Amino acid sequence: MPVPAPNLYPPFNTVRLSHVCLNVADLGASRAFYAELLGLQVTDEDDRHICLRGMEERGHHCVILQRSDRPGTVEMLGFKTFDDADLDRAEAYFAAKGRPTGWVQRAYQGRTLRTADNIGIPLEFHHHMDRLEPIHQKYALYRGVRPLRIDHFNCFSPDVDASVAFYSDFGFRVTEYTEDEETGRLWAAWMHRKGGVHDIAFTNGFGPRLHHIAFWVPTPLNIIDLLDLMATTGHLDNIERGPGRHGISNAFFLYVLDPDGHRVELYCSDYQTVDPDLEPIRWDLKDPQRQTLWGAPAPRSWFEHGTQFVGAEPREATLAATPIIAP
Amino acid sequence: MPVPAPNLYPPFNTVRLSHVCLNVADLGASRAFYAELLGLQVTDEDDRHICLRGMEERGHHCVILQRSDRPGTVEMLGFKTFDDADLDRAEAYFAAKGRPTGWVQRAYQGRTLRTADNIGIPLEFHHHMDRLEPIHQKYALYRGVRPLRIDHFNCFSPDVDASVAFYSDFGFRVTEYTEDEETGRLWAAWMHRKGGVHDIAFTNGFGPRLHHIAFWVPTPLNIIDLLDLMATTGHLDNIERGPGRHGISNAFFLYVLDPDGHRVELYCSDYQTVDPDLEPIRWDLKDPQRQTLWGAPAPRSWFEHGTQFVGAEPREATLAATPIIAP
Amino acid sequence: MPVPAPNLYPPFNTVRLSHVCLNVADLGASRAFYAELLGLQVTDEDDRHICLRGMEERGHHCVILQRSDRPGTVEMLGFKTFDDADLDRAEAYFAAKGRPTGWVQRAYQGRTLRTADNIGIPLEFHHHMDRLEPIHQKYALYRGVRPLRIDHFNCFSPDVDASVAFYSDFGFRVTEYTEDEETGRLWAAWMHRKGGVHDIAFTNGFGPRLHHIAFWVPTPLNIIDLLDLMATTGHLDNIERGPGRHGISNAFFLYVLDPDGHRVELYCSDYQTVDPDLEPIRWDLKDPQRQTLWGAPAPRSWFEHGTQFVGAEPREATLAATPIIAP
Amino acid sequence: MPVPAPNLYPPFNTVRLSHVCLNVADLGASRAFYAELLGLQVTDEDDRHICLRGMEERGHHCVILQRSDRPGTVEMLGFKTFDDADLDRAEAYFAAKGRPTGWVQRAYQGRTLRTADNIGIPLEFHHHMDRLEPIHQKYALYRGVRPLRIDHFNCFSPDVDASVAFYSDFGFRVTEYTEDEETGRLWAAWMHRKGGVHDIAFTNGFGPRLHHIAFWVPTPLNIIDLLDLMATTGHLDNIERGPGRHGISNAFFLYVLDPDGHRVELYCSDYQTVDPDLEPIRWDLKDPQRQTLWGAPAPRSWFEHGTQFVGAEPREATLAATPIIAP
Repeated sequence: MPVPAPNLYPPFNTVRLSHVCLNVADLGASRAFYAELLGLQVTDEDDRHICLRGMEERGHHCVILQRSDRPGTVEMLGFKTFDDADLDRAEAYFAAKGRPTGWVQRAYQGRTLRTADNIGIPLEFHHHMDRLEPIHQKYALYRGVRPLRIDHFNCFSPDVDASVAFYSDFGFRVTEYTEDEETGRLWAAWMHRKGGVHDIAFTNGFGPRLHHIAFWVPTPLNIIDLLDLMATTGHLDNIERGPGRHGISNAFFLYVLDPDGHRVELYCSDYQTVDPDLEPIRWDLKDPQRQTLWGAPAPRSWFEHGTQFVGAEPREATLAATPIIAP
Repeated sequence: MPVPAPNLYPPFNTVRLSHVCLNVADLGASRAFYAELLGLQVTDEDDRHICLRGMEERGHHCVILQRSDRPGTVEMLGFKTFDDADLDRAEAYFAAKGRPTGWVQRAYQGRTLRTADNIGIPLEFHHHMDRLEPIHQKYALYRGVRPLRIDHFNCFSPDVDASVAFYSDFGFRVTEYTEDEETGRLWAAWMHRKGGVHDIAFTNGFGPRLHHIAFWVPTPLNIIDLLDLMATTGHLDNIERGPGRHGISNAFFLYVLDPDGHRVELYCSDYQTVDPDLEPIRWDLKDPQRQTLWGAPAPRSWFEHGTQFVGAEPREATLAATPIIAP
Repeated sequence: MPVPAPNLYPPFNTVRLSHVCLNVADLGASRAFYAELLGLQVTDEDDRHICLRGMEERGHHCVILQRSDRPGTVEMLGFKTFDDADLDRAEAYFAAKGRPTGWVQRAYQGRTLRTADNIGIPLEFHHHMDRLEPIHQKYALYRGVRPLRIDHFNCFSPDVDASVAFYSDFGFRVTEYTEDEETGRLWAAWMHRKGGVHDIAFTNGFGPRLHHIAFWVPTPLNIIDLLDLMATTGHLDNIERGPGRHGISNAFFLYVLDPDGHRVELYCSDYQTVDPDLEPIRWDLKDPQRQTLWGAPAPRSWFEHGTQFVGAEPREATLAATPIIAP
Repeated sequence: MPVPAPNLYPPFNTVRLSHVCLNVADLGASRAFYAELLGLQVTDEDDRHICLRGMEERGHHCVILQRSDRPGTVEMLGFKTFDDADLDRAEAYFAAKGRPTGWVQRAYQGRTLRTADNIGIPLEFHHHMDRLEPIHQKYALYRGVRPLRIDHFNCFSPDVDASVAFYSDFGFRVTEYTEDEETGRLWAAWMHRKGGVHDIAFTNGFGPRLHHIAFWVPTPLNIIDLLDLMATTGHLDNIERGPGRHGISNAFFLYVLDPDGHRVELYCSDYQTVDPDLEPIRWDLKDPQRQTLWGAPAPRSWFEHGTQFVGAEPREATLAATPIIAP
């Protein structure tokens, strides 16, 4: 089995993914997409940034939209640690691994460690983020797809084996993975900290690049509502793939593209993964039900398009295996 | 506008579509598909036939599966008239139109008129069908997609203008239609008697052939349940198209193929059409949202595959217009 | 059986219920309730009236809110006929029955016949109502419970046997009814024209009074959404009964009260009733599942509260039978 | 605030609730209820025991039904620890607290620590339970309410403050609580380990007794399906309360009673609670929306009925506060 044993006693405690910062060309267009169409709640905005949260989140932001002259790039992926001292432990850990480390100031957050993973994805760890009042029972605020919380990141990696090893070492646990039968190498893997199928996944490809971010929604009907809304408000071309059920994760999904080409997944109904002895589920790269349980392969764009991380030059994947692509 | 004015005072009163008789190779395989997988209820069976009804139907059958050495053909389409005398009026009407007429004996039905429409589709009209006890509140019987009732027939016609004119003359009313912009001719039309979007529809193509029969189900989630069930019980290849929402009819849909290649649609959430002055909705053949509101075009098989009616030789369509087909 | 045989060949053709005119104290409060909370679309408004329609309706109005110094009363119940000549036939019919008749001018309608039924309920029949463009696929307009169309009226009658006989005579057909076992008399009955379980129902009680009007919604989840919204926007006290599934009609339901005390039902998933030989379903007054399939009895207010019709003095019911009431 | 600060660094690591053992009179009747009606999967059975799991669980059992001459009692509540050494740490911890401890043999489990909490509830901790193959994508097995996993226990405690303090000390964290305004004491509290609203909750009352166990289901529609099924298969009297949405937890719920009077909740759509700094939400005992967001108070039985733990004599609650009870 190509999946490394998880490190159940990691050097520092990462609770969950927290937020992402996306570079965009036009804050107004992005606001319309994320707040009006998807239904995230704006928690702060000025002429440079918009902060958003999901309906059940009490942290200040799960998405930061940043006006940039490099739209369609990604500033960083954010994670929350269990306590403040975990940040120091994380700094020592990444420094020992030869990764760059530094402390940065971020609005609405406590002290924040910036580093980069083994393939160059910029990561920021914090423990404290300003807490806001609960709004999950303010039903008059629900709109769009009724996004409840950020669920996961998915990134292209040029070497998924290496990415999985890197994250396993500080406590991420693989729940499902796709193996290339011929080489025995990983083609993709889903890794979690928070007890769902993933906080972050890696897919073989030209990378590092962000494949997508995902939001958890209540039921498949909310995703159908979003499709109806997008299809009749001029956003037909932003619909990329779905709806469907993934074989991997068993989740019901839809993929859409934001105005700058960042891919967003709407996602629900995966399963609980808190058991430390949960056995990863293996899928064959040639199994079309891996992608969509109902058989429809993903379009070519889904395997090729992603958005680059600032300061991280992508490179070709070392594994040449080809997935099944829709004709 | 290419749609003829409906005949609001028809020569006889057709209440609704009633049932279909499908020729199949293996009654056991067909029973597994219609009764176990889709969830229709068997109301009678012997070594030649299986009769089925939906959960809210009180008539004896909406589908008759008939063992045949010509599997994958269709015996006839059945309709119910308002009263018994309508059958005599129908006979006189079709005879005057030069159509063949004759009285046939059908199990569980009163006297039944057999005729054929202008392109040769065999039709059978009855008023009386044996009535069964209600089972719509026997929830222990619900299975599969929870099919409630037969909803409509859809047929390939080599001349949709002619088919629409033929059915309009005895009271079918067009609710939506697709026009070929260049020629101004009908490419497809949806026609009803019972107050929904259609009892029968015609699509331009090599015909007459049956394109599909459809069953009404409670909600989109039942269709998602069926997809999950089919995908994990060896019926992946029977899934042809969907799920999605039609532009035309606004219904949520899925198309599957039975063991003999008869196409079945699972369908819900169209709208009420009882107003005699309901304006038909026009769609352009080049509008992809016509097929699927969310933009995905139908696969080629969906435009090409159908099942023949016994005794009706299909011919090429007189309109050469090409729809948008998935690559 | 206490249900009269339906008159299948009525003296004039009523297509369906059409609309209601409700007298209200404060148009702003009523607009907030019907348009913002429930989600009906305003089609016209001035300082005396607000007209509303459901999302799939193309007629101009299904509800007229009328500012009045007699708020909490009902101006009339409206019905649509199949053609214009039906109005003349209706006038002759009601006049021959000794009912008052007269022609009235109504905005956005063609000529309109005003009469009153056997217990004094003011009725208005029209054929033509101004037609509006379809909005059922303008998903950005959907709000609240996503009301698609008006579904039915329900009225207290002091003599349900007499009311049923009166409406049967001009073509309404009983689908389900509650019988008082001891007297063999009707306690309630559901009667339709349009092919659903009812256009109008009668319940034994101090009458005539309006018990409720109902709107058809897509799925039970929309009703759950409305409950969440009402419960968290200051409308908790407007929730009267439900959610639940009726034994009678099999529909999923919720009852709420508008600012003037008019009762509104949100309703979905009853069944098709177009067969002229559909057998009415009998329920025993003592069967609690009649009210709610899941067993919960209705509260006392539900049996006692209604809103009066203008000009129709209610009287006590002639049948003293008592339903099961929640303690 | 009456809620103690959570112990974020507990003496041993409890991952989640795991299973319950219920004493029953008739294994056949209980099997019909849990396996056929609710839809749990039988993983083992003999003439003394039946083991069951939910559709996404890979551990051998979440419910053990045990034939007993003391039906309607509860044998113990089971929890899973992060690793095997946690069991030793737990033994030392409970022994130091003066609680009874001992090692017991349980089928399909590794070594198992038996103890009792401060009010006498028998608890069993294990790390290893036999792992079974995934069945969450074997959709042909789904039945009833489609139970995915055990979600929580709820117990009557005669002293909720004391119970909360006891569990807080080994790492359970309060997510929501009900305070008695007059005394400032806790009336109820919801405590978790696994990242949902609770693994265990305590309600003020004659205790210790089990109030209910709960299973997680996919959507509210599955609960509606169960209601329809129970109401039409002779289980009407087993429906106790609901459906509704809790104010506390925001979950959609239904309470039913098994053949021996054990209460079972079907539950979905609460929220993620993994943040260690998640602020508990306070509710007032006099707020009816606490119980049901939509306003309906719980019936008296819901506050009074529970099932006793073997060997734990209940006593009266020390807090006399009275909740709102349905008339």
